[in-house]
Amino acid sequence: MPRMTPRSPFKIPKIPEMTVRRLSVYTRCLQQLEEDGVKTVSSQELAERFNFNSAQVRKDLAYFGEFGVRGIGYYVAGLKAELQKILGLDREWQVALVGLGNLGSALLHYKGFARQGFRISAIFDDDPAKAGKSVDGVAILPLRELPREAKAKNLQLAIVAVPAESAQAVTTALVAAGIKAILNFAPGRIRGGKDVRLKNVDLSIELESLSFYLAQGHR
Amino acid sequence: MPRMTPRSPFKIPKIPEMTVRRLSVYTRCLQQLEEDGVKTVSSQELAERFNFNSAQVRKDLAYFGEFGVRGIGYYVAGLKAELQKILGLDREWQVALVGLGNLGSALLHYKGFARQGFRISAIFDDDPAKAGKSVDGVAILPLRELPREAKAKNLQLAIVAVPAESAQAVTTALVAAGIKAILNFAPGRIRGGKDVRLKNVDLSIELESLSFYLAQGHR
Repeated sequence: MPRMTPRSPFKIPKIPEMTVRRLSVYTRCLQQLEEDGVKTVSSQELAERFNFNSAQVRKDLAYFGEFGVRGIGYYVAGLKAELQKILGLDREWQVALVGLGNLGSALLHYKGFARQGFRISAIFDDDPAKAGKSVDGVAILPLRELPREAKAKNLQLAIVAVPAESAQAVTTALVAAGIKAILNFAPGRIRGGKDVRLKNVDLSIELESLSFYLAQGHR
Repeated sequence: MPRMTPRSPFKIPKIPEMTVRRLSVYTRCLQQLEEDGVKTVSSQELAERFNFNSAQVRKDLAYFGEFGVRGIGYYVAGLKAELQKILGLDREWQVALVGLGNLGSALLHYKGFARQGFRISAIFDDDPAKAGKSVDGVAILPLRELPREAKAKNLQLAIVAVPAESAQAVTTALVAAGIKAILNFAPGRIRGGKDVRLKNVDLSIELESLSFYLAQGHR
């Protein structure tokens, strides 16, 4: 068994958001290495193969413990399992989806969510044309059913895929229903609440990382 | 006028992808500060207000030049304009969208793209039910029209929103048509080509940053 020493959770300092994002990326890279039959990897090799900074890799992991083994590096399967546990991917999460327009429908069928343990087990949409229907066995409910459904289904996360003008009201309703983590796709400055983790997804950032390289090339 | 010294583009070293992502985030923060009437900001203030690491902010910006002014910090409007130029947001980009299913439709109407200068000026979908139609004045074309359309419309970027099983073929066609930057939403390992920047969007990473905080709290 690999010798790893996860740090006590009570000593974990404030973790930068970018570190958490990188943990997700490292997990995917370790998955690839595992599929390729690689058993151990050094931070240097990991950095070279996937174009990271090796000091950054070590620093990111150091927040959570001492995972490397001198002279060997990291055990691929073991480190992947540790990171999955840290990211909460060792369990199933019950997710509410609010808004079943184009984006909501696309997210509902997004295979990556289920694969990582995110189960959309409640769908809310106030469109009368959708009410009473269901998708893949999940009923489409009006938003007023949220408080009851949140308790009944033990909803922990929510995805907001409604138009910008409804996003704040929906977020407020989610917070009131006890949802502690919200992923919001609507543009604009949305506020969550105390003890609520709100993450705004801005898809144009992804395009900007491409225009950056085009712009650099064009100079 | 603020004194800023952008570094010569010929000396720009390899820029980490995370730095580019942070430049996008800084740009949005500077935009917020500007809206709030803030004229100048130090790296320390920027870091505190938006929860960054101030050394990281300085390091990221240092790749591109010396933007700070001693005793003042950064000029908000000036730095924002410089970052926009670096990110290629000072011009309009012609973007091809391939796949007009739920996700493609959502992306087509995503307001954030147009706001940053990304104009979806060509739509491709091989579904016979969609061929010949148009959305917001943009014709939906079969993929075989791509080479001609890429030249005619000077398409520079592409967004791939097709099912996983078609993503590689579409990407190969885009590369053959001379598209140099591709944003792919389909899961799986897609390959681009030499001198082509391919970015795979994995939306479950966004949810993982939430489950991380929930998991930490649950321990």
